[in-house]
Amino acid sequence: MSIGKKIILLSLAVTTVSVMAGDKVKWKMATTWGDGLVPIITASKNVAKYVEQMSDGKFTIRVDSSNKHKAPMGIFDMVKGGQYQMGHTTSYFWKGKDINLMPLTTMPFGMTAPERMAWVEFGGGQEFADRAHAKYGLLSFSGGNTGNQMGGWFKKEIKSAEDLKGLRMRIPGFAGEVISKLGVAVTNIPPGELYTSLDRGTIDALEWIGPGMDIAMGFHKVAPYYYTGWHEPGAEAQFLVNKKAFEKLNDTNKAILKNAMKLAAYNMYLEFYHMNSEGWAKMKSEYPHIKVRTFSKEIMDKLRAANDELVEKYSKQSPLFKEIIESQRAYMKKSREWTIMSDLDYIQGK
Amino acid sequence: MSIGKKIILLSLAVTTVSVMAGDKVKWKMATTWGDGLVPIITASKNVAKYVEQMSDGKFTIRVDSSNKHKAPMGIFDMVKGGQYQMGHTTSYFWKGKDINLMPLTTMPFGMTAPERMAWVEFGGGQEFADRAHAKYGLLSFSGGNTGNQMGGWFKKEIKSAEDLKGLRMRIPGFAGEVISKLGVAVTNIPPGELYTSLDRGTIDALEWIGPGMDIAMGFHKVAPYYYTGWHEPGAEAQFLVNKKAFEKLNDTNKAILKNAMKLAAYNMYLEFYHMNSEGWAKMKSEYPHIKVRTFSKEIMDKLRAANDELVEKYSKQSPLFKEIIESQRAYMKKSREWTIMSDLDYIQGK
Repeated sequence: MSIGKKIILLSLAVTTVSVMAGDKVKWKMATTWGDGLVPIITASKNVAKYVEQMSDGKFTIRVDSSNKHKAPMGIFDMVKGGQYQMGHTTSYFWKGKDINLMPLTTMPFGMTAPERMAWVEFGGGQEFADRAHAKYGLLSFSGGNTGNQMGGWFKKEIKSAEDLKGLRMRIPGFAGEVISKLGVAVTNIPPGELYTSLDRGTIDALEWIGPGMDIAMGFHKVAPYYYTGWHEPGAEAQFLVNKKAFEKLNDTNKAILKNAMKLAAYNMYLEFYHMNSEGWAKMKSEYPHIKVRTFSKEIMDKLRAANDELVEKYSKQSPLFKEIIESQRAYMKKSREWTIMSDLDYIQGK
Repeated sequence: MSIGKKIILLSLAVTTVSVMAGDKVKWKMATTWGDGLVPIITASKNVAKYVEQMSDGKFTIRVDSSNKHKAPMGIFDMVKGGQYQMGHTTSYFWKGKDINLMPLTTMPFGMTAPERMAWVEFGGGQEFADRAHAKYGLLSFSGGNTGNQMGGWFKKEIKSAEDLKGLRMRIPGFAGEVISKLGVAVTNIPPGELYTSLDRGTIDALEWIGPGMDIAMGFHKVAPYYYTGWHEPGAEAQFLVNKKAFEKLNDTNKAILKNAMKLAAYNMYLEFYHMNSEGWAKMKSEYPHIKVRTFSKEIMDKLRAANDELVEKYSKQSPLFKEIIESQRAYMKKSREWTIMSDLDYIQGK
């Protein structure tokens, strides 16, 4: 082989290899959450960390929290429009755009976190997420489960459905629609003003998340009744991905991203479990006046009836909503029996 | 630059890049389980799948099930000795070698699966696993949780501790030691002979796993009483890795392997949840004579006292065992309160 040919061949080889090696992929992720919203923002950052480590720095994701992009409720549109390749958010924020996106997060009286996670992975849940997002050019993946959320902080004990009438409460989403049917005056107040509103009596009650995140808000100082949850038994956040951007990734990066998202999601569930355990232990020792209550059967039955009415209304409006709810209810029926036979009977047997 | 220099530089570049690209890592994993032991063997295979996909085929792991290597109880020694770089097994199999490895899997009356997984990740559990395995040159990582295991199949109903006396039961491990203190004659019988032994009355009862895996064994056909669990409330399998082999991996492969193991482990927990739900639904519809029971408070109290005695005995033998148990009990105390306030109160409130 002549020296000239050698140079050409070597150059070709170098060019090919260096293009491959230099073919760095740089993505941006927008989150609904601010920098301080641990452990949810931790899951956003973990995806970026895992992807960078596993791709040897060839695939990086810059995480822009809402402190930077200033559009916490703009994630859906920004990812759809391609300004961001992906987002970390929650599908039920878009129920106003599309009711089918509501049950992909959580439903009142619905599945607990392990039941829902098993449904997503093995019971058809991911396929419903794919179908519901297809027409928007979006892909949706599990973004981490908060676990069971508490029913909220109340200044006075709620003994009967009568006590709920006229109560002014901050409770967003589907649960707000449900509880308003029992006569609660549902209001929306920015997070930064919640404590003052509750303290001054502008509102009588509010729902936030659970002990791990509630403790920093200080609600327990002014509203001693802490009700267990009924409305968000296993809320699943979501990673929203622009489909065209995803399809441009090579197979290795696709696998890295998908696995990184799933791992970050599972870890978030465990971090919530940890923070809620720690948060509750701290609350209880420092504020022994807090009283944990569960709504009475009378209230629960009325909330369930109100929820069923709303589900029926939306099922008539959307066949896909109906299909998702039916799949979830069938799955819950089976998996709830196992939940009871396993962890519940075990704990009660003690 | 002369043509000669160019060739040398280009050659160097090509050589460096091709050595990197060609630097394939090939590992082998030995599993305690046979090819048919779904979903546990699924987790073993998933690690290999994730690693290959995320490394673009540059890091592969050949999975040898016990059908191939014929040494299901030899995993510890084979990984320690370096015949296999890693194994998929369960640390409590080695309690005879080292009692500290027992509580890293599960303990009677101990943590449920989410409680334990949170302890491993955020409550110091991984650090204990590191310490307990260090002297063997081994690393241990979560290998997937079975969830709560059922207390076993009994031919007759067990109403009091008296009924347990003289009962012949197959129940391995720490639980076997505990229940033998109540007068149960604990036996060990190979899995392939269990059904026949139970059918013919060679044994009166046995413990296996849960509905998802028990259904294939057919025990429900000959022993109608199915007791809820007390003895393995969240058994965690383990990935055992040879430390020297791990340290030879570059940082990218280390990250890929660690994340792949954790993801496979989490998925196994959900697959168990799914299979147990499906298995129980099937059993119940096809065999309506099955009766689910929980041991009485009298029996539970006696089992707990026997367990405490054994824990005390081993705590005296090993300071590390004592430390692990104390960490687990403190973590369980906190996290159990959250388990009750969240999923348990939610389910009971309905």
